[in-house]
Amino acid sequence: MVVSKAVVTAAGRGAGRQAMLPIVDRDGLTKPVLQIIAEEALESGVERIHVVVAPGDEAVYRAHFRNHAEALRSGGEAEGALDQARRLSDLAQRLTFVVQEEPRGYGHAVWLAREFVGDDPFLLLLSDHLYLSAEPRRCARQVMDLAAAEDCAVSAVQATREHLIHQYGTLSGRRPPDRPDVYAVEEIVEKPNPTLAELKLRVPGLRAGHYLCFFGIHVLTPGVFELLDEAVREDRRELGSIQLTTALSALARREKYLALETRGRRFNLGEKFGAVEAQVALAMAGVDRDRILAVMLDAAARVDQAPPR
Amino acid sequence: MVVSKAVVTAAGRGAGRQAMLPIVDRDGLTKPVLQIIAEEALESGVERIHVVVAPGDEAVYRAHFRNHAEALRSGGEAEGALDQARRLSDLAQRLTFVVQEEPRGYGHAVWLAREFVGDDPFLLLLSDHLYLSAEPRRCARQVMDLAAAEDCAVSAVQATREHLIHQYGTLSGRRPPDRPDVYAVEEIVEKPNPTLAELKLRVPGLRAGHYLCFFGIHVLTPGVFELLDEAVREDRRELGSIQLTTALSALARREKYLALETRGRRFNLGEKFGAVEAQVALAMAGVDRDRILAVMLDAAARVDQAPPR
Repeated sequence: MVVSKAVVTAAGRGAGRQAMLPIVDRDGLTKPVLQIIAEEALESGVERIHVVVAPGDEAVYRAHFRNHAEALRSGGEAEGALDQARRLSDLAQRLTFVVQEEPRGYGHAVWLAREFVGDDPFLLLLSDHLYLSAEPRRCARQVMDLAAAEDCAVSAVQATREHLIHQYGTLSGRRPPDRPDVYAVEEIVEKPNPTLAELKLRVPGLRAGHYLCFFGIHVLTPGVFELLDEAVREDRRELGSIQLTTALSALARREKYLALETRGRRFNLGEKFGAVEAQVALAMAGVDRDRILAVMLDAAARVDQAPPR
Repeated sequence: MVVSKAVVTAAGRGAGRQAMLPIVDRDGLTKPVLQIIAEEALESGVERIHVVVAPGDEAVYRAHFRNHAEALRSGGEAEGALDQARRLSDLAQRLTFVVQEEPRGYGHAVWLAREFVGDDPFLLLLSDHLYLSAEPRRCARQVMDLAAAEDCAVSAVQATREHLIHQYGTLSGRRPPDRPDVYAVEEIVEKPNPTLAELKLRVPGLRAGHYLCFFGIHVLTPGVFELLDEAVREDRRELGSIQLTTALSALARREKYLALETRGRRFNLGEKFGAVEAQVALAMAGVDRDRILAVMLDAAARVDQAPPR
């Protein structure tokens, strides 16, 4: 299974248009978050990216990319600026957009990409999550490699402490004998409470009090659209919106579907201080490590001088 | 002299629309930068704020404020969310906008606020700078207090090391006998080189190798518009654009005009890692100090695990 298409959902309304935030990447270049996410996909082997956006946002993104590239070209003196401008223009050509007219949920947003996806498997990413791999392969690539080797859908998961599982899709699964980091998916529940989780989602072999939660990266087969079709047609909502999780639960009963404990860290930019955490972690893992350490040391050195206002 | 009006220039194009960045303020609430700047003005005693924006941006700001307030009201559970929504709505009513059709420089952007200002003195702020005062009064308030006491224009300045002065308006001045932090402005040069600075801008009493540079906060008299009028009419550009500095240099020859070494720190969000520095400093000075310390310690603890990708 070769994955050459990615879908990025960026249709969030309100305050959280995180995909436009400027973040300094590991290479020391300031980029809008959407570019860092697109590069996660492109460097993992994807060729085309489809972005699901709120009404009006395609123009905003396109203008932002164009203006940013122009500013880089005219500023010019900063190291890597021209290269970064080229990368932005190349990226813009690999992007297509589709509009989610109303906020009907994550499942509905994914369903909107069905024409772009066609009969191919695809990588699915979120527009407000950044990843830092703990190995040479990108996090997305780890998932794509397992999907290619096993020729099936794969979701990235991470062992997560019980008090956090109410934020995530959580699943149970059986470990095959040969790989300790892979699970055959059995059941998935969106944002379960601890009682339900203990009853239905315990996974033997995980540390006590831990569950397998979605990490925000999936490689899915086009079969998921048949399942989403039903949910969208009937406007079948859970927790107020059309859930992807429900379709994935059904997918696990129809086809081979694995979960991979991905080696890396996730940063949710929508959380309080999520952007700072992501920025500090990216900088610490890249060319600007000394500079970000200096920023943090300077701040820490002022602990006793914290002013009243 | 009572200052009840503020002008905020936010007409920057390209990548740097910093005024929309979400930042967690000292009170633990996530706000767009423009709101934090507006609160600097309002809490210093200003009543109305005029924002100079790029074409199309008024709608973007208004929508952003409205969506953010709605999200706060509907999310609701977070502490202070309703109060924050009220503050945003109140703020939106105190804001008016004027469009700078073309990027003709900082002096031109200020000049566009002449009708709003009328015959009153006004506070002038930048949309990509945040301040952290080192005393109970806000930085803007320190400047407004001196302007009121001396009944004249006042610019905030900070002693700045020679290798940084090429970024700032830099000035020379005489210290009156009674206050060590106040200067009568003599000459101002926009972004001087060290040779010129040594020749013309040395200020007795400053530490060796330091110069007085603008801090980004001014209280100006409407007299500045007569000077800007000429520059705009003749499209008189220096360093490619119509400078405020040139008008302020002329102002110093026409009226009493002081500079105040402001007690506090400035954060330029347009610089690399400027937003992180600002975010860490604000959090360290507010209710989320323990949390931001934990973020930094966690990052520092991973120094030896920095991954290759």
